[in-house]
Amino acid sequence: MTVITLLTDFGLQDGYPGIMKGVIWKVAPAVQIADISHSIRPQNIFQGALALARTAFYFPAGTIHVVVVDPGVGTKRRPIGLRLGEYYFIGPDNGVFTLVLERAEAQEADIKAIHLDQSQYWLPEVSHSFHGRDIFAPVAAHLAAGILFDALGTPISDPVRIEIPKPVRTTQGWQGQVIHVDYFGNLSTNLHASHLEGAKQVTIRIKGNEIVGLVTSFGERPSGTLVALLDSSSFFAISVVNGNAAQYLQATVGETIEVFINY
Amino acid sequence: MTVITLLTDFGLQDGYPGIMKGVIWKVAPAVQIADISHSIRPQNIFQGALALARTAFYFPAGTIHVVVVDPGVGTKRRPIGLRLGEYYFIGPDNGVFTLVLERAEAQEADIKAIHLDQSQYWLPEVSHSFHGRDIFAPVAAHLAAGILFDALGTPISDPVRIEIPKPVRTTQGWQGQVIHVDYFGNLSTNLHASHLEGAKQVTIRIKGNEIVGLVTSFGERPSGTLVALLDSSSFFAISVVNGNAAQYLQATVGETIEVFINY
Amino acid sequence: MTVITLLTDFGLQDGYPGIMKGVIWKVAPAVQIADISHSIRPQNIFQGALALARTAFYFPAGTIHVVVVDPGVGTKRRPIGLRLGEYYFIGPDNGVFTLVLERAEAQEADIKAIHLDQSQYWLPEVSHSFHGRDIFAPVAAHLAAGILFDALGTPISDPVRIEIPKPVRTTQGWQGQVIHVDYFGNLSTNLHASHLEGAKQVTIRIKGNEIVGLVTSFGERPSGTLVALLDSSSFFAISVVNGNAAQYLQATVGETIEVFINY
Repeated sequence: MTVITLLTDFGLQDGYPGIMKGVIWKVAPAVQIADISHSIRPQNIFQGALALARTAFYFPAGTIHVVVVDPGVGTKRRPIGLRLGEYYFIGPDNGVFTLVLERAEAQEADIKAIHLDQSQYWLPEVSHSFHGRDIFAPVAAHLAAGILFDALGTPISDPVRIEIPKPVRTTQGWQGQVIHVDYFGNLSTNLHASHLEGAKQVTIRIKGNEIVGLVTSFGERPSGTLVALLDSSSFFAISVVNGNAAQYLQATVGETIEVFINY
Repeated sequence: MTVITLLTDFGLQDGYPGIMKGVIWKVAPAVQIADISHSIRPQNIFQGALALARTAFYFPAGTIHVVVVDPGVGTKRRPIGLRLGEYYFIGPDNGVFTLVLERAEAQEADIKAIHLDQSQYWLPEVSHSFHGRDIFAPVAAHLAAGILFDALGTPISDPVRIEIPKPVRTTQGWQGQVIHVDYFGNLSTNLHASHLEGAKQVTIRIKGNEIVGLVTSFGERPSGTLVALLDSSSFFAISVVNGNAAQYLQATVGETIEVFINY
Repeated sequence: MTVITLLTDFGLQDGYPGIMKGVIWKVAPAVQIADISHSIRPQNIFQGALALARTAFYFPAGTIHVVVVDPGVGTKRRPIGLRLGEYYFIGPDNGVFTLVLERAEAQEADIKAIHLDQSQYWLPEVSHSFHGRDIFAPVAAHLAAGILFDALGTPISDPVRIEIPKPVRTTQGWQGQVIHVDYFGNLSTNLHASHLEGAKQVTIRIKGNEIVGLVTSFGERPSGTLVALLDSSSFFAISVVNGNAAQYLQATVGETIEVFINY
């Protein structure tokens, strides 16, 4: 039973993700469909790329991830498909797959990219503003229904990538930045557990606040305390115990974070 | 594998749509269920009718659409079922099905309406405020499970309709109105591509702004530009490229839009 | 076809509930998954307990309810499983199951509680902040896939309970409180139909407003009227017809409600 996931910036009020499910089940009636998120900020490709990378590989092998954060819909940007190891990705060629591609490369997974140019697998009429419905959903459904990946398009070697902000080495440690603020107000950063290797003690500075050491869970500190910890993806995060760090610090995506390390 | 969809004004916090899924799966365990929207503005029958008309016919033939925007719940308003061609609709008789009925009539589809009065297909206890759970979900589930549509109620010929605002012919074109503001702030209108037939050039006026010509996609204009285009349902829409037209124009549902046509 | 439900305070933007679905379908590909709510206010165990009690027993026998409102994640609070009659519950041992436990006890259902300590049914790596993904989802999936409930952990007799505010008898009736404000702004209270037994006439006082008698449906009063009625779970609720009682009264959870009864 194949799984298709949907990750979009469509919001939940207008029924756009529902339409995509209808289109999918028309072609592949037994497919399981999971919503990842429809609340990516409109046109925010980077946020979509992050949400996808955090979730994609927890799904069963063979899962087809459909991503529609698509400011270029109706222009010449290509619709593409990717096979990264045992996972499939369908969506616009605008960089939203950058992080899953990087991960697949790092793991030396089998990678194949195609330009989705076989319109017999699309809806008969294609609008200029809703390729999620007209191209991406039906292509994913045909793939789930047994059409070979290679039959859906023409091989390409240059899927678009966006620049992902990387942490910078400093004399005393690393300088990174906040790359995501989650629903709880936790600040995720681009500093990973691996940046700490060999550290005896770390001190974190963000917006004039200094945090000494990491906690392993929120329960170690009283409510309201500003803490640093490794989040569930092993990235550094700044949180307030039972509170909202984004509000507390008045910080958002792009904020600088400095880590001072004693080895 | 039958599909049931849910379209309500219940919101997502309280678990009401989830309860309906439980009730459905109790009767019809293999049914696929899709949420269309649970964010219809409370009691806004017209918005529900629009969302339904935009989505219903993208689903597989045989799909059962359950709609619960139901300010009259617990009064004498009838629970009804409709068969429009190959699609089923279950919900309150308050006009929320007006647009799908009009479409079925225009297409000369087979139409059948019934008053859902066979309480053996309801939950044993029926509350005064949650017929989505007590009547509509179980009726839809029994239909999915194989009970004949005709067995669910008594034929009627007069399902309630609401008045749908129609565009008005003017000396130079059409005057229509904004009928929906979507999540992106796009303004959908009641002017359809068919109103433009034979037009060489169109000029659109809304709240003192004049837009010359239609674009076919957002990518044709720079970010921040106010544009007019045909949306994915072939209705006129007013948008701001990578922006929010509703905020930009301070416009909402009901706003007048004028189209001047050169033939 | 087993049903698993998800009830969390994760919000919908970040994809956390989607990850849990991926983890579940990896183990149990045919399971039906329903979202109850992911909009429980962060760390609000009482609101989670209420939402669960209102919804859980409308699902098919055998349903597995996974609840993740979990401020103590990563501390020593136990992960637990409950079998209450024909329903299963999986989540943190923090009282979120108090109301379903009370109900099962009142109905003299078969009750079994276990400490989920069999890590072979978890993900291989367990984070300190996302047990929904690492423990609860995989345990529920293994249960759905046929592992015996008893094999998932060690029996316990003392699941944590939270204090549920109970109405107080007064000389003239009852004093209760608002325990939930729903999406429509209806105020649910802890006063139940059973508190009214034998009443000829009731008068309700809340924030200086007096409401004489109950209505059975909203349609009995004009729009804008403040009314009291029994909600779809047979609890007293305060509503404004086609309006928002919480806004109208500036009232929220905890507000006192007095009921004066004439027998």
